[in-house]
Amino acid sequence: MKYSQYMDSVDRLIASALEEDIGTGDITTLSVIDKDRRAYGRYIAKEDGILCGMEIAQRVYKMLGDDIEFTAHFADGQAFKKGDVLAEVRGGAITLLSGERVGLNLMQHLSAIATRTRDAVEAVKGTGATIVDTRKTTPGMRVIEKYAVRVGGGSNHRFNLADGVLIKDNHIGAAGGITAAVRAAKSHAPHTIKIEVEVETEEQLREALAAGADIIMLDNMNEEMMAKCVKIVDGKAITEASGNMGERDLYAVAKTGVDLISIGALTHSARALDISLKFVIE
Amino acid sequence: MKYSQYMDSVDRLIASALEEDIGTGDITTLSVIDKDRRAYGRYIAKEDGILCGMEIAQRVYKMLGDDIEFTAHFADGQAFKKGDVLAEVRGGAITLLSGERVGLNLMQHLSAIATRTRDAVEAVKGTGATIVDTRKTTPGMRVIEKYAVRVGGGSNHRFNLADGVLIKDNHIGAAGGITAAVRAAKSHAPHTIKIEVEVETEEQLREALAAGADIIMLDNMNEEMMAKCVKIVDGKAITEASGNMGERDLYAVAKTGVDLISIGALTHSARALDISLKFVIE
Amino acid sequence: MKYSQYMDSVDRLIASALEEDIGTGDITTLSVIDKDRRAYGRYIAKEDGILCGMEIAQRVYKMLGDDIEFTAHFADGQAFKKGDVLAEVRGGAITLLSGERVGLNLMQHLSAIATRTRDAVEAVKGTGATIVDTRKTTPGMRVIEKYAVRVGGGSNHRFNLADGVLIKDNHIGAAGGITAAVRAAKSHAPHTIKIEVEVETEEQLREALAAGADIIMLDNMNEEMMAKCVKIVDGKAITEASGNMGERDLYAVAKTGVDLISIGALTHSARALDISLKFVIE
Amino acid sequence: MKYSQYMDSVDRLIASALEEDIGTGDITTLSVIDKDRRAYGRYIAKEDGILCGMEIAQRVYKMLGDDIEFTAHFADGQAFKKGDVLAEVRGGAITLLSGERVGLNLMQHLSAIATRTRDAVEAVKGTGATIVDTRKTTPGMRVIEKYAVRVGGGSNHRFNLADGVLIKDNHIGAAGGITAAVRAAKSHAPHTIKIEVEVETEEQLREALAAGADIIMLDNMNEEMMAKCVKIVDGKAITEASGNMGERDLYAVAKTGVDLISIGALTHSARALDISLKFVIE
Amino acid sequence: MKYSQYMDSVDRLIASALEEDIGTGDITTLSVIDKDRRAYGRYIAKEDGILCGMEIAQRVYKMLGDDIEFTAHFADGQAFKKGDVLAEVRGGAITLLSGERVGLNLMQHLSAIATRTRDAVEAVKGTGATIVDTRKTTPGMRVIEKYAVRVGGGSNHRFNLADGVLIKDNHIGAAGGITAAVRAAKSHAPHTIKIEVEVETEEQLREALAAGADIIMLDNMNEEMMAKCVKIVDGKAITEASGNMGERDLYAVAKTGVDLISIGALTHSARALDISLKFVIE
Amino acid sequence: MKYSQYMDSVDRLIASALEEDIGTGDITTLSVIDKDRRAYGRYIAKEDGILCGMEIAQRVYKMLGDDIEFTAHFADGQAFKKGDVLAEVRGGAITLLSGERVGLNLMQHLSAIATRTRDAVEAVKGTGATIVDTRKTTPGMRVIEKYAVRVGGGSNHRFNLADGVLIKDNHIGAAGGITAAVRAAKSHAPHTIKIEVEVETEEQLREALAAGADIIMLDNMNEEMMAKCVKIVDGKAITEASGNMGERDLYAVAKTGVDLISIGALTHSARALDISLKFVIE
Repeated sequence: MKYSQYMDSVDRLIASALEEDIGTGDITTLSVIDKDRRAYGRYIAKEDGILCGMEIAQRVYKMLGDDIEFTAHFADGQAFKKGDVLAEVRGGAITLLSGERVGLNLMQHLSAIATRTRDAVEAVKGTGATIVDTRKTTPGMRVIEKYAVRVGGGSNHRFNLADGVLIKDNHIGAAGGITAAVRAAKSHAPHTIKIEVEVETEEQLREALAAGADIIMLDNMNEEMMAKCVKIVDGKAITEASGNMGERDLYAVAKTGVDLISIGALTHSARALDISLKFVIE
Repeated sequence: MKYSQYMDSVDRLIASALEEDIGTGDITTLSVIDKDRRAYGRYIAKEDGILCGMEIAQRVYKMLGDDIEFTAHFADGQAFKKGDVLAEVRGGAITLLSGERVGLNLMQHLSAIATRTRDAVEAVKGTGATIVDTRKTTPGMRVIEKYAVRVGGGSNHRFNLADGVLIKDNHIGAAGGITAAVRAAKSHAPHTIKIEVEVETEEQLREALAAGADIIMLDNMNEEMMAKCVKIVDGKAITEASGNMGERDLYAVAKTGVDLISIGALTHSARALDISLKFVIE
Repeated sequence: MKYSQYMDSVDRLIASALEEDIGTGDITTLSVIDKDRRAYGRYIAKEDGILCGMEIAQRVYKMLGDDIEFTAHFADGQAFKKGDVLAEVRGGAITLLSGERVGLNLMQHLSAIATRTRDAVEAVKGTGATIVDTRKTTPGMRVIEKYAVRVGGGSNHRFNLADGVLIKDNHIGAAGGITAAVRAAKSHAPHTIKIEVEVETEEQLREALAAGADIIMLDNMNEEMMAKCVKIVDGKAITEASGNMGERDLYAVAKTGVDLISIGALTHSARALDISLKFVIE
Repeated sequence: MKYSQYMDSVDRLIASALEEDIGTGDITTLSVIDKDRRAYGRYIAKEDGILCGMEIAQRVYKMLGDDIEFTAHFADGQAFKKGDVLAEVRGGAITLLSGERVGLNLMQHLSAIATRTRDAVEAVKGTGATIVDTRKTTPGMRVIEKYAVRVGGGSNHRFNLADGVLIKDNHIGAAGGITAAVRAAKSHAPHTIKIEVEVETEEQLREALAAGADIIMLDNMNEEMMAKCVKIVDGKAITEASGNMGERDLYAVAKTGVDLISIGALTHSARALDISLKFVIE
Repeated sequence: MKYSQYMDSVDRLIASALEEDIGTGDITTLSVIDKDRRAYGRYIAKEDGILCGMEIAQRVYKMLGDDIEFTAHFADGQAFKKGDVLAEVRGGAITLLSGERVGLNLMQHLSAIATRTRDAVEAVKGTGATIVDTRKTTPGMRVIEKYAVRVGGGSNHRFNLADGVLIKDNHIGAAGGITAAVRAAKSHAPHTIKIEVEVETEEQLREALAAGADIIMLDNMNEEMMAKCVKIVDGKAITEASGNMGERDLYAVAKTGVDLISIGALTHSARALDISLKFVIE
Repeated sequence: MKYSQYMDSVDRLIASALEEDIGTGDITTLSVIDKDRRAYGRYIAKEDGILCGMEIAQRVYKMLGDDIEFTAHFADGQAFKKGDVLAEVRGGAITLLSGERVGLNLMQHLSAIATRTRDAVEAVKGTGATIVDTRKTTPGMRVIEKYAVRVGGGSNHRFNLADGVLIKDNHIGAAGGITAAVRAAKSHAPHTIKIEVEVETEEQLREALAAGADIIMLDNMNEEMMAKCVKIVDGKAITEASGNMGERDLYAVAKTGVDLISIGALTHSARALDISLKFVIE
């Protein structure tokens, strides 16, 4: 399980976070702590959750110096309980204290996404529905936020506007109907990409199916309507439930038989999960 | 009210967000919508809040093309009600649709921070306490998240580890006591920066005051203890209440007489505020 | 028709090309030509072809200075004959001479790709086959080289390894068979992406179809075998002919009934098309 | 033999090529191949040629991961035959498959240039003429393309517009004659740089010599005229044959006695040399 | 003693200096010296001074190659005499010669600043005054120039316009007086930053003190006036002497009792200190 | 007269200088000055000199905002007297005050170099000798420092190690003598670059001439020796006097008949020229 195959983009994110946080130097630590002092610290969970960001926290320290020994006790994707010791670090006190915030900020944010995703996945257990994310991510962090969704057991929707066709009401209006829009997409987009159409009514659904849509997004429907649509589709396309799913009863939605449930709140509204990092200067 | 005097860092953030979201092109829009079509759209509030990010949303469109007319009806810092039309846009349909998500993501995130800050500011109204942020911000977005806090009526704590001294328990331990730590900071840090000390007990407080601390952070204290500490300080230093303030009764905290209340949750746990952008293709 | 919606990547390419070519200044031009001299120039075709890169050539001059008037007589995608005047430029002589090579290099290279693509498209005219490119592009120029393919009438295959699944022999071997490989891809890859399988035998073809492949790549087959495979597929998947297609009789290949013919030589072996730019100093 | 002393620019090229090709991850390989699988591969020549890019291919894998063992059997500059095994690689299967295209694209392109250069060098063997390149290179790849020319036995002309004076017809027109142009160049350009003048007639040649040109470019002349000019120059300057040399009989040109023959086609029209990389998953 | 905690900014400076100086390669060294030759060199002081930049010189060679053994005999901050061998290097001759200038340029420049600072510190010895720098630094080198000041025994004034408030005459005029300006600063600037006010008269001084200024800058005063002001301040604020201090009798200034003397000339007018690097090719 | 044809590198320098100096915002100015206030300022010379950096100062303000009117009274290269008003600026007070230091730092530094160069040029007036710079420049500023030398009436030596061959004692030792070193350089370096050899004795001089050196550097010689060498060269090569020329009697050196005198101190030891910028808030 890798958040990005080519680590450069993640390393650039970490580097810019360190630059933003440390600026020209952690003046407190540099003033107060002797450069030869060493410290020992523990990442401790202050609430239950699913871990995400352990490898990133290690890279933060690796980019700050080569004097840190990092021992992870939990891996990305594992569940932990309040009070668990997630990892231990030992090394130069100045490095450890100066890099504390950046690593923690990332681990808390990503674990929050993974945990919220796992909750959603649990909620639809046994239904066959898959939880997927959206493009509602934090600017600059999409790669790792979508990784956190996978870590939590969800799947990823398209990464950006270039690698998936999603025809919405505006596109339909501009093209002069669903049939015309799908036809335009089929002739212009790469043949490797599937075509998804957002529908709000049964009539739109039937037109989208007839036009050859590969995926149907059932937008803002109640469960009854959704179930009806799934029956109409009858396996001829993938179905995706969408629209404020962060506040819906996911099990009820899943029971309609939809293949996917996409939830923007997984990434755009995750509250930081509480993890602490306490040091002992040695 | 400006989020950054030198706009380059903000423009870089927008550029990277656009690159991340649009990739090699919005394949749906490019396939379906004729390049000469124009569209008209409205940003509509789906809940009450304090606006933040209007100028940034404008810059997003400015960076995508020069064919967009943007009319703001609310400015950063203004309160809006559910249903209010926050702004109108008109221009090339392809540009408008392709840039929709990046501008919205930023406006929803920043308005959430401003709104949460305003709530905190309202909660302590009449007490003389000031609401301040922390370094618990999203990597890469600290400048604009701290701007959102100001927009919401809060004040900013130090920007990074270089522009403020904050002596915590680890520093005290390493230095061999509060007095030694403050002395070290005074002799090494630039004379333009104040020295803050985190204390947890009355004894520590007295030592910090005697050592000449400019600011005292009262960490994780109940209101009674806090009030007692404020009395001991008696104006000889600035006092700051800290520690899980996102879940405390802010009015009760403020009534203890502290000068500042710092709340990490303002930035690290803001749920995106619901704003929609609906288009009509013309 | 746009080579990239978000122009930044193209502008960065131009900027780096200018930096590479001009270095610290065109010492000849700066030494010999007075800074107030103006010049007039014409882009003239030295052979027939399909134009590509006109807008890019304009941007080159726009990035070098604001004193150039550029009048295009042909647009990207138009056919021209040897001797045609493709565009005229007038402005500061120093700017015009210093930017000459970068604009020309790009226009010659892209027009070569567009022309070669058009030749291939003409070769399969009337057969229903579509000409597509591959990932065999010049490092750093994939966006604009794939644009040139579209300008020449071809279509684009996947842009990179992230936006399309293509299961080759190595993947099949590692997964333990086509069926297993397709199943793994279906469960891990985003649901918005189609799954393509490379096959070399009829047996593999049948297994890929049974496994639910969306696209079948017929690799290195003769026309007879290809036709047989197309008949077996019978519309249940998209078929793509591949393997040294730059040196094959494209019409014969197309007559087998394949949907797509992918040709690496479109981009990796295009010889620069001969276009000259002659100036008169005024 | 080094393509660039300071490897940063080459590493940046490789990094951007990897980012362009891999995007957010090789979805096929990540889906299908277990992360612990290892693979073994061989670079095999599919036609004769001169190798160039071996060290670059190694760096590609080094930048992707540290789990690859790379054994080169041929070094840059060595001739190989169809069927030769150029190198072997062994290591993590995911890394090997994901980086395959970038390394191959570069090696095929550079070997094509080296091979074409070697052909030109062979063509003029025994004449004393030197084969040199031009500025007609691929944007962003000038450093390594000029390296490939050296690998093939050619020499480099000036790298960019800043490190050599080349007075062409436009400069002469603007300056009011060859004598005036050379004088201007001598007084403005750094004294470390030689002055080259492009001439098309015997009269121009005599004027350039009298003005003190260090190098004379004989542009678009037939062999008879060229030989006459070489006789006139008589060792008082370096002579360079130029103008569509990619399509001329190089031996005939060289026999005129010119010192240099510059050929744009070495770099701008090299067809990728056919090298394959086949893996076995272990 | 560290010039910057997070080395990235320093490494970027070195990388850009190397790129600027080496360009596409040290053509002389590459032409003349065989790649297997090794060399031995010594950094020798040609005048007395305080060393600064030893670690940076090492990083220069580390970034150029991994074949250099660097032995430092003096550390940053140590005094040396004319003729002292500051360091020895041994390794690949090409690397050593190519990187010579960049390392030397930096070491000579930084040692000049450290030496000039030490001279100033010596001049005020025994008076209790501290020597500080200003923002009059070389663009792009502020971090390391301020480090050199610390190495020389001085202290740093604010790093940039964001991390310290300094109210000058223009601000006072715009705000409508010192009292109004200080009040505005107190209510807008972060509470962690001290407020400094520049005064030229006794009246201004008294107003600044009454307004609660933390630091008073005594600008362009003679010693008599300065002493008078120090007496008025009487420990209620920090006092800083400023204004052409590079040409003043520092001891006389210090004897007035000011806490700080800020000297722009430390950084903006340091003449390179003479250090040579001589090699023996082995 | 242009410091760099392609302004990007200069703009990047300015941008990084602004970012370094302004950080997250000029907190004093933003706190104290109302955003609608306007100001008027004058650049005033506090000593005599040659102006350099006027256009750069303008670009600084252009990059900070579009509300500044800049009127230059002197152009780069013009002499000014103490008390002269060099330029006037009017516009937004916040922009004017925030950008003050960066523009001034650059103008003072470049004018110092231009002035020192002009002094050297004046010193050798009537002798025919040309004053040239070296590679002893400030990291990151070579392009504009060499521009300042030209502005002061000097000429530029090679820009970097790639665009000129300079054979020093180390190269000679490694190559096994001057003749071998020159021969190696002639066969490897581009034919557009001249070959310079550093000599310290008459014997070395004769060998360099015989080997065909284009330029002879007479290193650390007294005037008598230098004159003798110039006589031996007798126009067969360019002669350059070098070695601590910043402290030599330049007229005496020039009278020996050398063509060039290269002076590192022009750039590495220029003391900032005193120019002030005073504002009136309107």
